Amino acid sequence: MGAGSATSEGVEMTRRLVIIGGDAAGMSAAAQARRMSSPDQLEIVAFERSSRTSYAACGLPYLVGGFVAAPDSLVARTPEEHRANGIDVRTRHEVIAIDTLASTVTARNLDTAGESVLGYDELLIGTGASGIAPPWPGIDAQGVLQLRTLDDAAQVERLLAAGARRAAVVGAGYIGLEVAEGLLERGLAVTVIEQLDAPMGAVLDADMAAGIAQAMRDAGIDLRLGTAVTGFTTSDGRVTAVDTASGPVPADLVLIGLGVRPNVELARAAGIDIGAAGGIVVDDHLRTGSPHVWAAGDCVESRHRITGRPVVVALGTHANKQGRIAGTNIAGGDAAFGGVLGTAITRFKALEIARTGLTEREAAAAGLDAFAVTTEALNRAHYYPGAQPMQIKLVAERGTGRLLGAQIVGGEGAGKRIDVFATALWNDMRVAELGGMDLSYAPPFSPVWDPVLLAAGKAASKL
Amino acid sequence: MGAGSATSEGVEMTRRLVIIGGDAAGMSAAAQARRMSSPDQLEIVAFERSSRTSYAACGLPYLVGGFVAAPDSLVARTPEEHRANGIDVRTRHEVIAIDTLASTVTARNLDTAGESVLGYDELLIGTGASGIAPPWPGIDAQGVLQLRTLDDAAQVERLLAAGARRAAVVGAGYIGLEVAEGLLERGLAVTVIEQLDAPMGAVLDADMAAGIAQAMRDAGIDLRLGTAVTGFTTSDGRVTAVDTASGPVPADLVLIGLGVRPNVELARAAGIDIGAAGGIVVDDHLRTGSPHVWAAGDCVESRHRITGRPVVVALGTHANKQGRIAGTNIAGGDAAFGGVLGTAITRFKALEIARTGLTEREAAAAGLDAFAVTTEALNRAHYYPGAQPMQIKLVAERGTGRLLGAQIVGGEGAGKRIDVFATALWNDMRVAELGGMDLSYAPPFSPVWDPVLLAAGKAASKL
Repeated sequence: MGAGSATSEGVEMTRRLVIIGGDAAGMSAAAQARRMSSPDQLEIVAFERSSRTSYAACGLPYLVGGFVAAPDSLVARTPEEHRANGIDVRTRHEVIAIDTLASTVTARNLDTAGESVLGYDELLIGTGASGIAPPWPGIDAQGVLQLRTLDDAAQVERLLAAGARRAAVVGAGYIGLEVAEGLLERGLAVTVIEQLDAPMGAVLDADMAAGIAQAMRDAGIDLRLGTAVTGFTTSDGRVTAVDTASGPVPADLVLIGLGVRPNVELARAAGIDIGAAGGIVVDDHLRTGSPHVWAAGDCVESRHRITGRPVVVALGTHANKQGRIAGTNIAGGDAAFGGVLGTAITRFKALEIARTGLTEREAAAAGLDAFAVTTEALNRAHYYPGAQPMQIKLVAERGTGRLLGAQIVGGEGAGKRIDVFATALWNDMRVAELGGMDLSYAPPFSPVWDPVLLAAGKAASKL
Repeated sequence: MGAGSATSEGVEMTRRLVIIGGDAAGMSAAAQARRMSSPDQLEIVAFERSSRTSYAACGLPYLVGGFVAAPDSLVARTPEEHRANGIDVRTRHEVIAIDTLASTVTARNLDTAGESVLGYDELLIGTGASGIAPPWPGIDAQGVLQLRTLDDAAQVERLLAAGARRAAVVGAGYIGLEVAEGLLERGLAVTVIEQLDAPMGAVLDADMAAGIAQAMRDAGIDLRLGTAVTGFTTSDGRVTAVDTASGPVPADLVLIGLGVRPNVELARAAGIDIGAAGGIVVDDHLRTGSPHVWAAGDCVESRHRITGRPVVVALGTHANKQGRIAGTNIAGGDAAFGGVLGTAITRFKALEIARTGLTEREAAAAGLDAFAVTTEALNRAHYYPGAQPMQIKLVAERGTGRLLGAQIVGGEGAGKRIDVFATALWNDMRVAELGGMDLSYAPPFSPVWDPVLLAAGKAASKL
């Protein structure tokens, strides 16, 4: 039962797009479809569980750290603004079922508990991802939380106001590092507990992580590597320590930063294909396996351009791009998602950390015959004041010299150089050609051989 | 008459490589050839007019400005270091003739005026370029100089020590801007005189230059645009004013920054081909039209990758690359120069300025059917402290959407984004695909749509 269809007289009836999830993917799709279709052509209804839309979750660690003053500044567009743009946003509504045969969704109003059924002509699933929270004893205690929403950030503020002094961060990945720095900024004693033997261990090769561990310790963080969490000690329902295989770590505020998992249960229950990587399967136009059902953002699998394999990468960049592409296609356009390279960047204090493509470990796991070369270089001419070192590790294919991946750790200007490698990877470049490119040079910006060229040249010399 | 050749018995005799010019191109070639051949295989003799080798001319404005403390820090490698590396560097020697039939050069010892003839098996011409100095009356006066060598920088220091207070810079290109900032830093009153109607008028489109003119004036520079220099007023042989079509500009220190012209007279006199762009003609292996004669650096023409036409681009990056490539080939290897894109970067105070490929004006001059789109974006997430704006102008081909060029003017981190566009140009990318790439994102480094993606997406939307 669609909401509308073209009549035999050729008079176009209004079609209805229903969107599940009012964050980056869903609302990008809504905005793009709205841009391309009038309300007479396309009605757009977006259901969102929370009371907010389109906020920058990536900004939450900086909010906690006090770098960002106002929570509202993280909201790119409010429900009211979306409504003024002709999008019927229904906040505090959770979609609890999709019927792909009847082309309907069932939504529950979280304030009244009332349920309603709404038909769709096109459906976009943008249900996002949830933080991984292992079933550790005590994980539901007061003071143990994740940092996924503005409400989580408000909860951190309440705990700080109530006198929290000792923080433990579980996980030393992107969010773990960013949150740890934020809590340090707020004057807390911070312990970071990581099961792997290196910070950023899931995203960088271990040899690139030594400098990060050092920077964390230099900043005053008690970094516990190779340490498995087993649960939490609580008192009166409040956390007092993180229990680990090597003893308890006292803490009155615990932030779990173990990555995320796509929210696919709703789609799975509706019979929509879920892939081996755990996300909703979509083609490059963001179509699922069910007719007129689209999906985008953290809940889908994307094609990795280097391995060709499906991967789940939960990043706002992809969610925004995919949402826009889905919106274009839903509105009758033709756009395709080009896949992902696994590009990412963060910083810990002054240290910039970035990666793209495959690490040496990932290349081996993908069955590629790869080699790696690490280069030390400066971000400015050696004689220019403030020159700072960076390390660049390149992974390339033996024989062909095809670039497979890059990792960068270093001072100012180091991190964003990853985009040059990402562009090279996107174009399937060989390291020898990369080393000869015409990149920019002036003493305040790089040595005469930019670190990118030096690294590529060194890799080419090993072929 | 070669210095050596393989005998019929197969015993290899030592060959001799003679290099004319001991700066970036010549000494890069020497070092690379030395790396690949033993002294028994290849003798390397390098003639250099001055008493120095391998210094970073691009650092001179920062030396004048006091950003760089020691002149010696600009010297990448001294004659002694080259000699210790097995390269026979003969400073204060000027090559005055090449005989390609006899395979000899004639060199003059500038201290003794003695001349000598030396045979070569391979000859590399790395004679560089000279600053353009129009035949204006008074241009030889004391106080009027260019900034091409460490001696020039020392001369500026002497004039400052002697009480120079009012500086005039002729030309508002790269060197003009950098020198003007340096002299401001030293406390001088600075006037910049430019014949065109915009600073950087030869390298950026005029619409991108407005912010630069404003930044120069905000910094206290008296910027005279559209003003033609006619000569210099002097007193007792010392400059007192720059004469212009609109009146005199008092000055006791004048720096000419009008760009450079390749030094090709020696090659021309030897019958070596000079091209329409004014440089020595070389193929992608850096061979000239004369057997066993190679040329590299500021004195040669390079192929522009977008237009396919020969251009002269005097930049240390190309000189270093070409020198290394020539050295590889001379030593029996096989390397090719991939051409130039016209990538360049500089800064004026906090304002970063960069370009690559063709400007809108250059694209029109090349007969391309181009359009241009300018985008304003931030260098960080809008809510992240210190976010600064940048302008990106993209030039693309109508119909195909092929990227033709990019110009960037903006705050911290703006300039080096040009390398992403350079990499895209190198790979002949279309703006639509460029706008969908997987570039890095985190709030301290960019908005969720990096300015590069925003600019490309905007250009694609105009197709």
